[in-house]
Amino acid sequence: MNKRIAVLPGDGIGPEVMNGAVRVLQAISDCFDHEFSFEEGLIGGAAIDDCGQPLPESTLALCRESDAILLGAVGGPKWDSTSHAVRPEQGLLGLRKELGLFANLRPVTAYEPLIHASTLKKEVIENVDLLIVRELTGGLYFGKPSERRGENKELVVDTLVYNVYEIERVVEKAFQLAQKRRGILTSVDKANVLESSRMWREVVNRIAKKYPDVTVNHMLVDSASMQLIYRPEQFDVIVTENLFGDILSDEASMITGSLGMLPSASLRSDLVGLYEPVHGSAPDIAGENLANPLGMILSTALMLKFSFGLDKEAHIIEEAVMKVLNEGYHTGDLNLQHGKQVGTTEMVQKVIDAI
Amino acid sequence: MNKRIAVLPGDGIGPEVMNGAVRVLQAISDCFDHEFSFEEGLIGGAAIDDCGQPLPESTLALCRESDAILLGAVGGPKWDSTSHAVRPEQGLLGLRKELGLFANLRPVTAYEPLIHASTLKKEVIENVDLLIVRELTGGLYFGKPSERRGENKELVVDTLVYNVYEIERVVEKAFQLAQKRRGILTSVDKANVLESSRMWREVVNRIAKKYPDVTVNHMLVDSASMQLIYRPEQFDVIVTENLFGDILSDEASMITGSLGMLPSASLRSDLVGLYEPVHGSAPDIAGENLANPLGMILSTALMLKFSFGLDKEAHIIEEAVMKVLNEGYHTGDLNLQHGKQVGTTEMVQKVIDAI
Ligand SMILES: CC(C)[C@H](C(=O)O)[C@@H](O)C(=O)O
Ligand SMILES: CC(C)[C@H](C(=O)O)[C@@H](O)C(=O)O
Repeated sequence: MNKRIAVLPGDGIGPEVMNGAVRVLQAISDCFDHEFSFEEGLIGGAAIDDCGQPLPESTLALCRESDAILLGAVGGPKWDSTSHAVRPEQGLLGLRKELGLFANLRPVTAYEPLIHASTLKKEVIENVDLLIVRELTGGLYFGKPSERRGENKELVVDTLVYNVYEIERVVEKAFQLAQKRRGILTSVDKANVLESSRMWREVVNRIAKKYPDVTVNHMLVDSASMQLIYRPEQFDVIVTENLFGDILSDEASMITGSLGMLPSASLRSDLVGLYEPVHGSAPDIAGENLANPLGMILSTALMLKFSFGLDKEAHIIEEAVMKVLNEGYHTGDLNLQHGKQVGTTEMVQKVIDAI
Repeated sequence: MNKRIAVLPGDGIGPEVMNGAVRVLQAISDCFDHEFSFEEGLIGGAAIDDCGQPLPESTLALCRESDAILLGAVGGPKWDSTSHAVRPEQGLLGLRKELGLFANLRPVTAYEPLIHASTLKKEVIENVDLLIVRELTGGLYFGKPSERRGENKELVVDTLVYNVYEIERVVEKAFQLAQKRRGILTSVDKANVLESSRMWREVVNRIAKKYPDVTVNHMLVDSASMQLIYRPEQFDVIVTENLFGDILSDEASMITGSLGMLPSASLRSDLVGLYEPVHGSAPDIAGENLANPLGMILSTALMLKFSFGLDKEAHIIEEAVMKVLNEGYHTGDLNLQHGKQVGTTEMVQKVIDAI
């Protein structure tokens, strides 16, 4: 198989974890005789430093021509004081929007060897296997107006906008995913307050008729944030709008003991996708060989599965990660007394050895 | 002391827990020779059933004339299908807005006897003592437009609006509270995406100059939802906008093992306040003597403290609750193997006996 992969390391620990991911993919392509070509592009703060733009035209063009995109992380204090138009995050948000990657999949499973790293009790998390499907190109993230108003700019407005088709396509995706899993879909909204949530709920109920084999329930977002740590095993697929998904998926990451473990896939209707770890750029530990590369490595497994249909290869990466964790290796972000703490590059090498 | 208290039981388990709260206050007034007069008003679904309005004029008038308001809970499936204008929640939201109760205080502490009821590990929660200050009369909850648009109503819009003075007053309140506590204020926003959050952050930084003895830090809401269960003891006072506060306070309730334990106070600049448990109307267990009355009872303690300045009396209620919990009594919402499970009225009686 011949595939073009756009590689956007970004900021902070992005380059380190990306380097590991590319090495893992090279190991896979060697074993299976695939041709993966990797082309690097600038994004976020790194791009701002280079050309003043968080999402340069060349990067966007590269992504448009690629079969899949790998992204490390964007942002950092260095660019925090810059004006709105040139914030690193705008690079990532722009890319999601420009490529129309509306469905962000964030799987959360408890890894047996990491059970003790979680702040939640063993019996609460050991059977967790859930998937958050977050809408990624609408809502408060992109709604206009988003501005200051009034004579003295004393008023500020952000806008939560959804078009019904934007809700439909992500909800449809979530139903399809639930169908292939345990068949339970929880739609999260704030329908007792927001008009957009009431529309969201209507769409879910309408589409539910097409999927009689999927059990649907609705949950308010405040309740969901509680249930996620009260009885997380009740969830199979969770579908929700952009900002709610942002908040709930970071919270859910605590089930695995560390945000550093979580991969994500951002998809649209064809096979192109963007794959990035859920964690951020972690500027405080950047360049110190401390970052957990597993979120990024597991993201490449999602790429192989969703964009390239290489389920076997994806499975081999996931198994390799499990094996290394089972051997007790972990990075410092995981709060584990036992086992052997290793750095980023050692962790990557362990995974490659296990492949 | 002579005080007029408006009593709004509302829906579901509201009347049951309210009944307990009034009995506890009567016990206090007997002991201390206070005159508390209780006047009942309708709100939420109960009011809709009576007169078609979730917040009748008479209830609003009663609240305006009272020194403090006690509220049980509103809402339930019975009224879910009714149109937007007559939803039970509108009664509560309208009351908050009409009375200008902009600062919602939600304290969360780990209760020693309940440590094992939490899904979080003992060592994670045992030292938690935090206070969430949630903005209560602005943001997405009240912003206009909130409507469907387009030829086929295919577009939906909600609006997040803040006026700078609305941010200032709640942030000021949070600083004052932090000053009287451990002096640490965490402001939660989504400043990497929302313009309103950037204004929020500016206001916090500006007001911080007046409180050099308070340490301020800013945290993104996604990160906060993670940190709340990763290292909750890091927090002293958390201040945030309406919807973020709604989500984070329900999440934080899991530290105490049950939402049923949490009281809240909704304040403005004078001494008038509304006091309600954080839990909802729990229609599934309504009328079965199963509800946990402690969130409502602890809310009356907040009323005595904040609205009436009766710190000693408030303390006696809190101590009585602690004593009963220490004796092993608890309602069924608390997932405890040991101890003695009791019903709502027994729990209330235990607290009264302990006063
Ligand atoms: C960097 C930021 C804009 C982004 C988001 O909020 O979507 C991040 O938190 C994420 O979850 O991917
Ligand atoms: C009932 C509902 C409107 C309310 C809110 O969202 O504010 C409740 O969840 C709360 O937290 O008091």
